[in-house]
Amino acid sequence: MTMDHAPAAASNGERRWNPVTSEVVRALHRAVGRERVLSTPEELLAYEYDATIERGTPQAVVFPESTEQVSAAVAVAHRFGVPVTPRGAGTGLSGGAIAAVGGVVIALTRMKRIIEVDRVNRIAVVEPGVVNLDLSRAVAPFGLYYAPDPSSQRACTIGGNVAENAGGPHCLAYGATTNHVLGLELVLADGEVVHVGGRTRDVPGYDLTGAFVGSEGTLAIATKVTVRLSRIPESTRTLLAVFDSVDDASNAVSAIIAAGILPAALEMMDRHIIAAVEPVINAGFPLDADAVLLIEVDGLEEATTEDAAMIRGICDAQRAREVRLAVESADRERLWAGRKTSISALGRLYPNYYVLDGVVPRPRLPEVLRDVYRIAETHGLAVANVFHAGDGNLHPNLLFDERVPGATDRVLAAGAEIMRRCVDAGGSITGEHGVGLEKRDFIGWIFDDIDLAVMGKLKAAFKADGRYNPCKAFPTTRGCGELTDRVVARHAPALGTDIYV
Amino acid sequence: MTMDHAPAAASNGERRWNPVTSEVVRALHRAVGRERVLSTPEELLAYEYDATIERGTPQAVVFPESTEQVSAAVAVAHRFGVPVTPRGAGTGLSGGAIAAVGGVVIALTRMKRIIEVDRVNRIAVVEPGVVNLDLSRAVAPFGLYYAPDPSSQRACTIGGNVAENAGGPHCLAYGATTNHVLGLELVLADGEVVHVGGRTRDVPGYDLTGAFVGSEGTLAIATKVTVRLSRIPESTRTLLAVFDSVDDASNAVSAIIAAGILPAALEMMDRHIIAAVEPVINAGFPLDADAVLLIEVDGLEEATTEDAAMIRGICDAQRAREVRLAVESADRERLWAGRKTSISALGRLYPNYYVLDGVVPRPRLPEVLRDVYRIAETHGLAVANVFHAGDGNLHPNLLFDERVPGATDRVLAAGAEIMRRCVDAGGSITGEHGVGLEKRDFIGWIFDDIDLAVMGKLKAAFKADGRYNPCKAFPTTRGCGELTDRVVARHAPALGTDIYV
Repeated sequence: MTMDHAPAAASNGERRWNPVTSEVVRALHRAVGRERVLSTPEELLAYEYDATIERGTPQAVVFPESTEQVSAAVAVAHRFGVPVTPRGAGTGLSGGAIAAVGGVVIALTRMKRIIEVDRVNRIAVVEPGVVNLDLSRAVAPFGLYYAPDPSSQRACTIGGNVAENAGGPHCLAYGATTNHVLGLELVLADGEVVHVGGRTRDVPGYDLTGAFVGSEGTLAIATKVTVRLSRIPESTRTLLAVFDSVDDASNAVSAIIAAGILPAALEMMDRHIIAAVEPVINAGFPLDADAVLLIEVDGLEEATTEDAAMIRGICDAQRAREVRLAVESADRERLWAGRKTSISALGRLYPNYYVLDGVVPRPRLPEVLRDVYRIAETHGLAVANVFHAGDGNLHPNLLFDERVPGATDRVLAAGAEIMRRCVDAGGSITGEHGVGLEKRDFIGWIFDDIDLAVMGKLKAAFKADGRYNPCKAFPTTRGCGELTDRVVARHAPALGTDIYV
Repeated sequence: MTMDHAPAAASNGERRWNPVTSEVVRALHRAVGRERVLSTPEELLAYEYDATIERGTPQAVVFPESTEQVSAAVAVAHRFGVPVTPRGAGTGLSGGAIAAVGGVVIALTRMKRIIEVDRVNRIAVVEPGVVNLDLSRAVAPFGLYYAPDPSSQRACTIGGNVAENAGGPHCLAYGATTNHVLGLELVLADGEVVHVGGRTRDVPGYDLTGAFVGSEGTLAIATKVTVRLSRIPESTRTLLAVFDSVDDASNAVSAIIAAGILPAALEMMDRHIIAAVEPVINAGFPLDADAVLLIEVDGLEEATTEDAAMIRGICDAQRAREVRLAVESADRERLWAGRKTSISALGRLYPNYYVLDGVVPRPRLPEVLRDVYRIAETHGLAVANVFHAGDGNLHPNLLFDERVPGATDRVLAAGAEIMRRCVDAGGSITGEHGVGLEKRDFIGWIFDDIDLAVMGKLKAAFKADGRYNPCKAFPTTRGCGELTDRVVARHAPALGTDIYV
């Protein structure tokens, strides 16, 4: 049977991958144990979603508990020519964990050991299924934490964070995941185990750690991640600045950064977000404001006192209606709860939403934001904005009802137009969510074919031939024309469901 | 003649590269203009050195003045199967710019235009031959600077900094070159021009910018570099702490970091360095001290005041004999002149020196430093230490006289032993100088063959087949057995010569 396993060529010359036959399932059973494999339709249904509007049903889901089991499962997929899609908690916002062409999903959620915490060198070695916030909690007794904080940090895993180079509100000051990953143990597409990077920032040879972070599951599966830990700051102060105009709030963002202050976080929420979240969370966001800024500074007590005073002055000068300071941790937590649940709260307003992830140079925020509202209006859509303003990282949420004929098409058209606007302003099509399925057709706006060809060849360095997370990140992946099971809208989750941005 | 140009196989099966024939020189003349090509022995002599003890004579040196000319020269080398070695200012400390097997050197020093300064987004686009300090000087009127500051910054070029992922005293707080490069225009080994990265920190697709930075000229030649600029801090304070024991000084380093202070720079100089530099520079380093720390903090006025006070207290607690504070810029500059010329000053003590570049976890500094002195003594060598203590980045300088029979062998043996000690302590064989020619046989201590094979394949992604900067960075490069022109010692430069560490 060995030759039967080679992928067949489709009639249009595109490469096709093999399906997961019962023979493949039996081989997986032998490789990792029957209890670690799901393969019945009703079991698989739970793994066809992530937090996007994409969908794809895997033909088997494997739950390895060790590097050896990941390697064994991947080797089976390699032998049978079956696609592999790695999956963490499924909170991703670009379809990265979707089994776009079926095949085997490798779910890393059972590999959740914190293997080592080196307090002195401030390093932790963790398995990929460790939940982001669990790591920070585990090292808190040592005065340490793991800095990248996606809004999904209560649920998302370090492995998923690595795949998508996840950001978060505090990445303004501390950088995204890539700035906090020192080394990786990886399982390549043929099951081989390799190590890249190390325990220090500068390691000899090529920086494959950096190249792997953000590769969206297309190169290999990380089975151990060595991360930098950061010290919990002595003092943290959070300000809420209330504005009567989005323009004023945007100008305040630029003015704060221009003054040489680098806040730990600098977030904006517009009136639509406030309308959704305030009645539920009671964070204290005024319902009649056009925009609020949530600004956090941390560091030594004296520095945060001075920074907070300067920020207050700048916001006043930019016509803030009011600036409140939260020092007590309960007050701060309430403000952050408002911010971090804002997307989930949109379910109160509309049955569906579509969240975008664009980047623009910070000084161009006011004009691009005006265009975001205008584009949504042109397409007859409501839009709510909550985003990492300090990074120029926009998250417009297009609100709609998929039951209205044509609504989904209008959403996708408006989304593409907004992405294009970001690129034309000198920005980019993703700040932190990744390209995934959603935006692989937009990457050509940023890179030409020659540039993409060089990137594509990186797969060869990792022995990844396109069978690893097919159809993600690049427009050129072949065999993705057969994406038949793709849907483009789903019901917004009930309030409190774990959807974050 | 086309087939004649294909590289011949050596008798041992290793790949060999073709020599630069007069036909190749004529083709280079046609490609870039006769006035941009050197090819006579006396002209080439100036390009056989960098700042290491390695040597290798190129057969031609090309001085392109545009991306098109780099591409044209590289295409000629490709057509004739001739090795290519990129070169900046030649200040490198691992032999990266040495034409190890002859061939064509592409000297980027005439490509020194600052193409664009974007004040608002704090970005500059520069050609690779721009001198590091010249960039900071050019953007100073806007209150900006380029943060990575190798000690050679008055001479070294941005292109060389990118190739070696150069560090510097202030990389403790601000990160090395890789943290400040956003995008690159590259000429591949066949002359093709590609773009990686962009103008923002997060760009879709694989992070090939990160993979390229530190690739030591083995992948491609950067012809444009987009860098982040930083704001000149409001306030800078520099402290000199004087210790009667290296152990106390090392412990002070750990204690400062453990207290949650991240100084902009934290440097150590031992008594041998002081003895060399003080009589010349009069920086105020006491000749009878065992070690001094040079500690700089920057930021807001209030923060630096507090940090400086805390550092003073910590140093006192670690038995500093004296702690001096320099606030005036003239005083600070004198201290830094002492630090940055310390290696050159070693010429006063011994005719030759060999500078190492190892990394150890910071808390292990005291024990490893003790072993550095012990290992040098065992081999009958003097050693002087000046280094980035805050990073745990050691620079032991082995002092010797190459005219003493066997001295050079003892230096190389002691150097290898010290590198091994760093690795055994959980560290690495390079902090900022790169692997280059010098340490390519040590990389196996850090990575196994499978790990190295994955790295090696990155070359294929860039279409680099080993002809680009041959024999650098990796132990597996074939055809490097023919390194016959290698010498392992040279005279220390006269005081004031541009040698930095």
